[in-house]
Amino acid sequence: MSRAPLLHASPDQIAAAARRVMARCDELARVTATSGRIERVYLSPEHARVNRLAAEWMRELGMRTWQDAAGNQVGRLEPAGSSRIDQRAGGHRGPALLLGSHLDTVLDAGRYDGIVGVLMALEIVRLLRMPDAASERWTSGLPFAIEIVAFSDEEGTRFGKALLGSSAVAGTWEPAWWDLTDADGTTLHRAFLEFGLDPGRIGEAARRPDEIVAYLEAHIEQGPELDRAAEPLAVVSSIASARRFQLVVEGEARHAGGTPYDMRRDALLGASEAALAVERICAAEHHIIGTVGRFEAFPGAVNVIPGEVRFSLDLRGEFDGERDRVWGSLSQELDAIMGRRGLRWRSREVHAAPAVFCAPLLQDVLRAGITQTLPSRREEPPVIFSRAGHDGMALGAIADVGMLFLRNPDGVSHHPDEAVSAGDVAHGIRALAESVLHLAAEPAR
Amino acid sequence: MSRAPLLHASPDQIAAAARRVMARCDELARVTATSGRIERVYLSPEHARVNRLAAEWMRELGMRTWQDAAGNQVGRLEPAGSSRIDQRAGGHRGPALLLGSHLDTVLDAGRYDGIVGVLMALEIVRLLRMPDAASERWTSGLPFAIEIVAFSDEEGTRFGKALLGSSAVAGTWEPAWWDLTDADGTTLHRAFLEFGLDPGRIGEAARRPDEIVAYLEAHIEQGPELDRAAEPLAVVSSIASARRFQLVVEGEARHAGGTPYDMRRDALLGASEAALAVERICAAEHHIIGTVGRFEAFPGAVNVIPGEVRFSLDLRGEFDGERDRVWGSLSQELDAIMGRRGLRWRSREVHAAPAVFCAPLLQDVLRAGITQTLPSRREEPPVIFSRAGHDGMALGAIADVGMLFLRNPDGVSHHPDEAVSAGDVAHGIRALAESVLHLAAEPAR
Repeated sequence: MSRAPLLHASPDQIAAAARRVMARCDELARVTATSGRIERVYLSPEHARVNRLAAEWMRELGMRTWQDAAGNQVGRLEPAGSSRIDQRAGGHRGPALLLGSHLDTVLDAGRYDGIVGVLMALEIVRLLRMPDAASERWTSGLPFAIEIVAFSDEEGTRFGKALLGSSAVAGTWEPAWWDLTDADGTTLHRAFLEFGLDPGRIGEAARRPDEIVAYLEAHIEQGPELDRAAEPLAVVSSIASARRFQLVVEGEARHAGGTPYDMRRDALLGASEAALAVERICAAEHHIIGTVGRFEAFPGAVNVIPGEVRFSLDLRGEFDGERDRVWGSLSQELDAIMGRRGLRWRSREVHAAPAVFCAPLLQDVLRAGITQTLPSRREEPPVIFSRAGHDGMALGAIADVGMLFLRNPDGVSHHPDEAVSAGDVAHGIRALAESVLHLAAEPAR
Repeated sequence: MSRAPLLHASPDQIAAAARRVMARCDELARVTATSGRIERVYLSPEHARVNRLAAEWMRELGMRTWQDAAGNQVGRLEPAGSSRIDQRAGGHRGPALLLGSHLDTVLDAGRYDGIVGVLMALEIVRLLRMPDAASERWTSGLPFAIEIVAFSDEEGTRFGKALLGSSAVAGTWEPAWWDLTDADGTTLHRAFLEFGLDPGRIGEAARRPDEIVAYLEAHIEQGPELDRAAEPLAVVSSIASARRFQLVVEGEARHAGGTPYDMRRDALLGASEAALAVERICAAEHHIIGTVGRFEAFPGAVNVIPGEVRFSLDLRGEFDGERDRVWGSLSQELDAIMGRRGLRWRSREVHAAPAVFCAPLLQDVLRAGITQTLPSRREEPPVIFSRAGHDGMALGAIADVGMLFLRNPDGVSHHPDEAVSAGDVAHGIRALAESVLHLAAEPAR
């Protein structure tokens, strides 16, 4: 499909937009629970602060803003010619294109994961909005509203359950989640109350499929493929299927000096073998990644054999069936390891998301956006699948999802060295704005 | 050497003493930082409370009491006929037999490790003291004073450095220790001040060799040898040499989904291999035990590859040379593991104690004490070496050390299920009292 460029924006405008995105990434990086490193988890004081900042930036663009019942920060710009009725609270139900990503972080995070997508969405709105003479206000300049959603919890850092913010929007929030606890034993329910949210109103965050035109997100790749291929942008074909488990290995805490090897039931050694088995089994597969990220030994004293280890397993694959088969193999291997060592183990699944395939139409308009942004490229833009999870995994339940990836130097993410270049952000802004215009021009819409 | 029994105590007296020890173990178990489990670390409010209880019990027996400059609780009973001068503060320098053990615990501890030795010492004093008509006070009934020392830190739970209390008494306290920190970052220096101790006066806790007749300690075995041999008591031949290290493995924290296996430098997997190498290398040796008890992964998020792991290594052997050779092998193996995985590692030695051999004379009197307590036994009492560390390791620098081990069912220690029977405690009380009388009867003394 050949399409002509639709965006009228000067290189200076685009460059200024990219500079603003980079500067705001730095500004948000300063909102952290731990000075010297970035840590911003769900329902924390830092969460409230970045929501206030994002709302202010949305309002500068003429958007109406609200924080939804799950703590997501939303801004909305109505389409030209829409009546004033639409602007009242609760009156935001005309179909909207959702642009967004998340503002929460992992511990000791980088400054771009999620954040850059929210800030780029603000620049798309800045480029596409236009004054509506009739109503003396800004409008989306498109045949539908635009909403920017800054999701409140994508990483799952605090409660071990990812995509809490986007699950609330998708209407797939589960009551069992209220009992999830953070490291201090605070339940999700209690954290809602302490943040000033009403758990009983969580349903109000849910959106109906007929309210949403599509969900489009820009995100750094969090992997090395684009960097290796020397490509600044890619269309995402699908988001990996992911399951997360909390595992417990139980042995017996005994005196480190007095207990000979033949009487030990050392939970740490069993769990160490398990972590190595995850690597061995997953690395032998194609497109399966398993990671043990959290690992705690109890009682945790230098002279006591660990009686218990709790650890997490994050398992991802391009296809659900392949991923589930690997979990089966792993479970068998854990049975064998723990059996040999006289240990017990158990697991609890804390997160499961099927692979989400990006909508063909959205892949198509993103491909057009990239092609017009980088006209000297001879080939089709790269299309890659995302091993990392994204808010689109939850949104897939109620909307078509499209994603644009930005090159991530060396693939470093979830780390202070995480990076993206201002040049690639500029390309991404132009490509995403162009894609939105192509979507608006689709006859079916 | 054949010796006649010297102790005149009825079976009822001994049984009552054992019952009192068991009841006081229960009472001390209730002094804990965490309800439902036993946790009593150095310079904590719980430390202060058990010192007050122990001092009260010492004073009930007519002992003069003080808390020394390292927070050890001491009680002293002068020998018959000593002048009143000896009783003034600072006037406790006549030679004394030291009996004792420690009152601090590991995390989620049992109730006997250390504690039973302090409480048995109180019963020994009760059995051996006698009224001194001349001075209208109680005396030790022996040609030397008796001191009970309840050491304040043997386990090293809080600062990772064991034997702090007994090292202060031995005069081997090192200035570098002041900078050790607990899990909250509190330095040992700061903890002294908060406890009400003056770090500048630590030297006052040190005792001179000519003040000490010997150091005798009763302790549960913390291993299964006596239980396996169906023996209630044993003479200890030596205390294992021990070294403790804090190890750090450094890799790179990256996104769990986005980073393919060929780009990972996962510190957790390297540290897991290291823990398994410790087991493999030590288990192949005779009388070497290595334990990884503390193990922490950072940043510790479910969806981040661990960039750093910190863990402890506790390495014990009967002989220093053997132990050091094994550490050499382990270091080579760690170089190989980390080299393969693109990780860095480093270690810091936080504790080193040479093997301490118990004095032949003290082994001899303890053997006599056991033989007279259990006259129906046909053979010599068992003599075993202690893989567990004890306060005697530090005291060895200034005094002859003797140790009596009590049977420890199934060898469970450093665990809530840690046990000792009242019957074995009764045997132990009689045997230790008898041993003290034999020591007092030695011509050389």
